[in-house]
Amino acid sequence: MRYLDSIHTPEDLRKLSVEQLPQLCDELRQFIIEQTARHPGHLGSSLGVVELTVAIHYVFNTPDDRLVWDVGHQAYGHKILTGRKDVFATNRCYGGISGFPRREESEYDAFGTGHSSTSISAVLGMAMAAKMDGNIQRNHIAVIGDGAIGGGMAFEAMNQASYRDVNMLVILNDNKISIDQSTGAMSKYLLSITTSPAYNRFKNRLWNLFTFNSKQSNKITNFFSKMGNGLKGYLLGGSNWFQSLGYRYFGPADGHDVVALVKTLQGLKKLPGLKLFHVLTVKGKGLEMAEQHQTAYHAPGKFNPDTGQIIEPHTEGMPPKFQDVFGNTILELARQDDKVVGITPAMATGCSLTIMNDVYPERVFDVGIAEQHAVTFSAGLAAEGYVPFCNIYSSFLQRGYDQVIHDVALQKLPVVFCIDRAGLVGEDGATHQGAYDLAFLRAVPDLIIASPLNEHELRNMMVTAYHNAKQGGLPFVIRYPRGRGVLVDWQNEPQSIPIGKGRVLREGGRLLVLSIGPLGNNVTKALGQLSEENLCPAHVDMRFLKPLDEELLRNMAAKYPVWLTVEDGTEKGGLFSAVAEFLEENGLKNVLHHVSIPDRFIAQGDIPNIHHEVGFGVDDMVAKIREILAE
Amino acid sequence: MRYLDSIHTPEDLRKLSVEQLPQLCDELRQFIIEQTARHPGHLGSSLGVVELTVAIHYVFNTPDDRLVWDVGHQAYGHKILTGRKDVFATNRCYGGISGFPRREESEYDAFGTGHSSTSISAVLGMAMAAKMDGNIQRNHIAVIGDGAIGGGMAFEAMNQASYRDVNMLVILNDNKISIDQSTGAMSKYLLSITTSPAYNRFKNRLWNLFTFNSKQSNKITNFFSKMGNGLKGYLLGGSNWFQSLGYRYFGPADGHDVVALVKTLQGLKKLPGLKLFHVLTVKGKGLEMAEQHQTAYHAPGKFNPDTGQIIEPHTEGMPPKFQDVFGNTILELARQDDKVVGITPAMATGCSLTIMNDVYPERVFDVGIAEQHAVTFSAGLAAEGYVPFCNIYSSFLQRGYDQVIHDVALQKLPVVFCIDRAGLVGEDGATHQGAYDLAFLRAVPDLIIASPLNEHELRNMMVTAYHNAKQGGLPFVIRYPRGRGVLVDWQNEPQSIPIGKGRVLREGGRLLVLSIGPLGNNVTKALGQLSEENLCPAHVDMRFLKPLDEELLRNMAAKYPVWLTVEDGTEKGGLFSAVAEFLEENGLKNVLHHVSIPDRFIAQGDIPNIHHEVGFGVDDMVAKIREILAE
Repeated sequence: MRYLDSIHTPEDLRKLSVEQLPQLCDELRQFIIEQTARHPGHLGSSLGVVELTVAIHYVFNTPDDRLVWDVGHQAYGHKILTGRKDVFATNRCYGGISGFPRREESEYDAFGTGHSSTSISAVLGMAMAAKMDGNIQRNHIAVIGDGAIGGGMAFEAMNQASYRDVNMLVILNDNKISIDQSTGAMSKYLLSITTSPAYNRFKNRLWNLFTFNSKQSNKITNFFSKMGNGLKGYLLGGSNWFQSLGYRYFGPADGHDVVALVKTLQGLKKLPGLKLFHVLTVKGKGLEMAEQHQTAYHAPGKFNPDTGQIIEPHTEGMPPKFQDVFGNTILELARQDDKVVGITPAMATGCSLTIMNDVYPERVFDVGIAEQHAVTFSAGLAAEGYVPFCNIYSSFLQRGYDQVIHDVALQKLPVVFCIDRAGLVGEDGATHQGAYDLAFLRAVPDLIIASPLNEHELRNMMVTAYHNAKQGGLPFVIRYPRGRGVLVDWQNEPQSIPIGKGRVLREGGRLLVLSIGPLGNNVTKALGQLSEENLCPAHVDMRFLKPLDEELLRNMAAKYPVWLTVEDGTEKGGLFSAVAEFLEENGLKNVLHHVSIPDRFIAQGDIPNIHHEVGFGVDDMVAKIREILAE
Repeated sequence: MRYLDSIHTPEDLRKLSVEQLPQLCDELRQFIIEQTARHPGHLGSSLGVVELTVAIHYVFNTPDDRLVWDVGHQAYGHKILTGRKDVFATNRCYGGISGFPRREESEYDAFGTGHSSTSISAVLGMAMAAKMDGNIQRNHIAVIGDGAIGGGMAFEAMNQASYRDVNMLVILNDNKISIDQSTGAMSKYLLSITTSPAYNRFKNRLWNLFTFNSKQSNKITNFFSKMGNGLKGYLLGGSNWFQSLGYRYFGPADGHDVVALVKTLQGLKKLPGLKLFHVLTVKGKGLEMAEQHQTAYHAPGKFNPDTGQIIEPHTEGMPPKFQDVFGNTILELARQDDKVVGITPAMATGCSLTIMNDVYPERVFDVGIAEQHAVTFSAGLAAEGYVPFCNIYSSFLQRGYDQVIHDVALQKLPVVFCIDRAGLVGEDGATHQGAYDLAFLRAVPDLIIASPLNEHELRNMMVTAYHNAKQGGLPFVIRYPRGRGVLVDWQNEPQSIPIGKGRVLREGGRLLVLSIGPLGNNVTKALGQLSEENLCPAHVDMRFLKPLDEELLRNMAAKYPVWLTVEDGTEKGGLFSAVAEFLEENGLKNVLHHVSIPDRFIAQGDIPNIHHEVGFGVDDMVAKIREILAE
């Protein structure tokens, strides 16, 4: 590739002429497509910001100028231009580079991301630091999508704009879509700016006329100038949403015209203070199928780089995803009772709530990237007798923790939380590991916390949670991992199970394994292998972390002197801790071992490697149990 | 009191004529002043909404119409008018009524509050439920302050306004102050609406002209109508901030003219859809000193109901508040190093960051009610080499949990978190108990978690955290309770202490007490009493929950067969759990007991009663230890 091959850092990029940039963009786009076709990742977002990425690094003095990519899905071009082209084939792989910006990976990654809506806060902190250092040259740039800017945290950061004397540029990357279609008033509002015919007709003339005339001082001119500003506000469809927060608003601009972007950014670079630059981009730009099917091509897996055709993995005869079991089961419940509603903070496709949405769109609420609101909105519905199934990914529920405590548990409102992506998630890496939910939720009084062994159990638990809610029971948490279960024939007739009761899967010899969740299937396999060696540990599927089945544990304590807990969660505060507390509280002297996520952040990689790293693989469990029994 | 005495429910209120309402307001205000003078509580907010409270219950059909008070500080009038006048003297007392709305207390409390910015989410959930039920009559009202509406969660809820066909009225109670002065762009923006002379001059004429003319349909009229809307937008200082989010904006109105409020609310009641009514109130209205000193009279303690004079409690010779020790110590550090900065989400007075603010206002950041942003903004500062002391109350840090994990710990950024109001807080009750931080933070890798025994230790820990940050160490959490410590002579020369090391306060007999935090002082007193009975347990001040001092514990395990952990935090996941895990992991058979917050929500009350309830009192500990030793 003519230009891309010679670019090792943005310094090299800046040696090109502006006229050469369109060609570079083509090459960069091609590189991303070819790489991502083979090594799956977040395609659509990165294709959408190719020109923006090139323009930013061309104009600004990175890494001294600070650049933060909100969420970070879109940072592939950034990584490739900042010294990681040669290792890009390891993107999201075990031992490779992260799919998100990471401070420890490159000095060009000014702040690590992964979760949404953090960039403005981080960049404002950096800009404030520069101001206090007396550094008035440095620029601070946050690139944030139209979905992410609707997150409450981004608003909190925007609202701290009373400090107008910091150099901060917020680039609003407006592609009308986050993973699913963007929702909410903000998104409608942005659309109104960009589609107003009046705006498009008068934009440039008015902009110049009324912006630059306002310095004239006599009263009459002022009056007309004010009139004009009002008119401009109207024609812009109310762009003073941003202006009222203290930002100078620029745009909207075509995000695929790299030459024009460079020109505008050069102007903005010289302008001190708080600025918002509204850029229109097309997610998946340059790959026709990705442009047409934006949700599917957010992270399409492997595809043909020439045609864009997704290479469907072979799934025939495989068990279903837990997500689809959730989606189908909530639809079954929704058919039976019109009080059943589904809530998701911008993850309708990812969690398969789309299955219910196709049938009952008026009872499915995608509230946008708004975990805090999603939880309390669900509580409001529960207060009125509805049965809200609030589906949130484990690592995103960290955003709604206070609301779970304060609005749900404290009021004993029977919200059903379906916690998706619980446990180790694999390729998304450290920011997305669902490692903490068992620990942080167990600390909360009046929560029921369950995790299913398999698809049948997920359905049973959802039905149990439903009946519990109808009877005014406590809030009910069901956590399950990303991906496929173990039962091809998953469509059982779901039945209520007793709350807070585990079940004995297998009696055995000296050792008892206590597992929770689908990791129990690895235990079953491990015990199968060990039984060939005439080692026969017992196995209990705890089903519930809370309330803990103390009666069962007491019975088991008498039978089995050695215990091993197995959970897809941190070793600090989850099942291991609960059982340790139980033993201590009851003065029991059973020996306790544990398999759980160690107390450190776990980086990206494929599940087999990650599982092996932390001892979750079947062979690892076999070895661990042998070791315990050898003691 | 002529009218108030006859009002037992809002039904009684609605029998009065509109002309009688001003007199009722006077009586209600007087009642609040007299009660709060004797039984301390949140005075200022409740005085500010007397007229609003009366008008809402007069016009709307509560409890069928749903009414939610954001935060709930301001709901005293509401409680008094809804059947709780006779028990109001028990407000915030042990066994009495809560200082905040609670669903279990009254059917008029449609949703419990305490933390900020939840009301719109809850009310939107309820309004959506009514819509799905086909109930088009019911009204849903959220009353939210100008500080609270700046919280990200409120914005998330406002942003879900794409559902325009729900009956929801947001009443913006704008008094320019939350506890401290409101900050941020939103607050400036609201001020610009209310102080624009152009607005005040033209308001009524323009409002009528341009709002009601817009139905005329010919093109020319339309054009002028659009011009007019633009002009109105300008003169209103950009009121389309709310309009752009899909709300019909009304106001600002005088919040102390009860007759006019009734008239406007009657109009709004008939108007379907999403409405925002902007009401201007004066915090502390009707008590001159409270109006003049709004922060001091937010919750003034006892005062003279006639003069308003605060009855200063006798504090001479008493130890200082931990808050003031924090405030003075950060100021000392700030004097030595201009990289030291202080961050608070709207609690500058409560946490005594005001002490530093008085000297270095440019290095103190009150970011508003914005916990999520506060954490990540601090991370941004730390990324640039600053030493941010981010002070957040324990129960409010629940709002910033994801940011602690994702933006701070994962990036190993040396933010210093000073967690105030940790442990049981007393009168503020269940919503404000700092019961969970030890558990939810311990689950997070790469955090240092400490809690000081006393004032000297707080200073030592702050200095340790400071040096740790300067050396690029891990993020550092210091948690301490509300209120006074134990050392009158608190101003030691603070010194660094070894991270992750506990200290032996006392060697002894068979039993070892392991405490963390100031509750250790109760242990010391208890051991003093017991020593008179020749019972001499040993005592270790753990200082750090994480890293846990395993070396010390191993040594102690050999000496002391029976252990007791003492912590001002939940029994699920904190020190007790950590020590239980340690014993199990090391195959140690020491017997472990614990004193901690039980796994249920703890209601309001004075600290002695609350402490006794959970076994934290000195006598309770004496009894517990005797019992253990008798086994």
